[in-house]
Amino acid sequence: MPTTEKALDDLFYETLRDIYYAEKQLVKTLPKMAKAAQDPKLKAGFEEHAQQTEGHVERLERVFEIINRPARAKTCDAILGIIEEGKSIIEDFDGAIALDAGLIAAGQAAEHYEMARYGSLKAWAQQLGYSEAVKLLDQTLNEEKQTDQKLTQLAEGGDNAKAAA
Amino acid sequence: MPTTEKALDDLFYETLRDIYYAEKQLVKTLPKMAKAAQDPKLKAGFEEHAQQTEGHVERLERVFEIINRPARAKTCDAILGIIEEGKSIIEDFDGAIALDAGLIAAGQAAEHYEMARYGSLKAWAQQLGYSEAVKLLDQTLNEEKQTDQKLTQLAEGGDNAKAAA
Repeated sequence: MPTTEKALDDLFYETLRDIYYAEKQLVKTLPKMAKAAQDPKLKAGFEEHAQQTEGHVERLERVFEIINRPARAKTCDAILGIIEEGKSIIEDFDGAIALDAGLIAAGQAAEHYEMARYGSLKAWAQQLGYSEAVKLLDQTLNEEKQTDQKLTQLAEGGDNAKAAA
Repeated sequence: MPTTEKALDDLFYETLRDIYYAEKQLVKTLPKMAKAAQDPKLKAGFEEHAQQTEGHVERLERVFEIINRPARAKTCDAILGIIEEGKSIIEDFDGAIALDAGLIAAGQAAEHYEMARYGSLKAWAQQLGYSEAVKLLDQTLNEEKQTDQKLTQLAEGGDNAKAAA
């Protein structure tokens, strides 16, 4: 039997703090990935997603307001690890033909992390009856999924083939 | 213009080493998540996936053979971060009614990381003409997707509702 009262609203808040940290890190990281990318379409894709990500931060701040808790980021080791791996790609494949393929993979790792988090948060917001939060979290979740698909298209559309040349 | 010859086969090998490390870590971590889970169905789900994960390690070893490179794991900061977050859930929500909902979210973060990696690896194996590797990577990718879906079903089937009670 549960011995504490710590329930879903705590888990929701802690996970919100985690993804808030992650999004803020990505606001700083995505322009670096855009700068490193060779393919102009990939460069533009990262730039566009950097802008979107600023909107994701604002949506999260609105969700903090809805649940009436302070918007305070909590270090997210997972996104730091993913960003670290992306940095290694930029360093190890600097000037190499496989750089873009590696950047796409790094971007997709970040998107998938976010998809997992927003999926959980949306389900919990539904359970907790925060209907406006559900809408906001779902908007971001869809943008993350679309970005992931766009990255797949860029990989299939030539960035992998170029890398294998 | 690219200044080095470092191409897709290097990226493929380095990413293979990364996910090899991640899978080996998960072989050790999943039984701990099974032990912590309260819902017997979630417990059984983690146990089953722990066994599957041993098979994923073996498939990766076969892929190393196919590309004729040593099966040597490379520290994956991303999975370490994801596992660390899972451990925090187990500690912070010990005995709490939201524990299972948190474990499901932690499991889904790991699955999503793997889906991203196997998705990239499969696409690169196709590009590089490693047809047997494509098949092996695709089998694991599908198992990760199925596990993610099963976790969603468990969350929707009651573990979130219980946590909100």
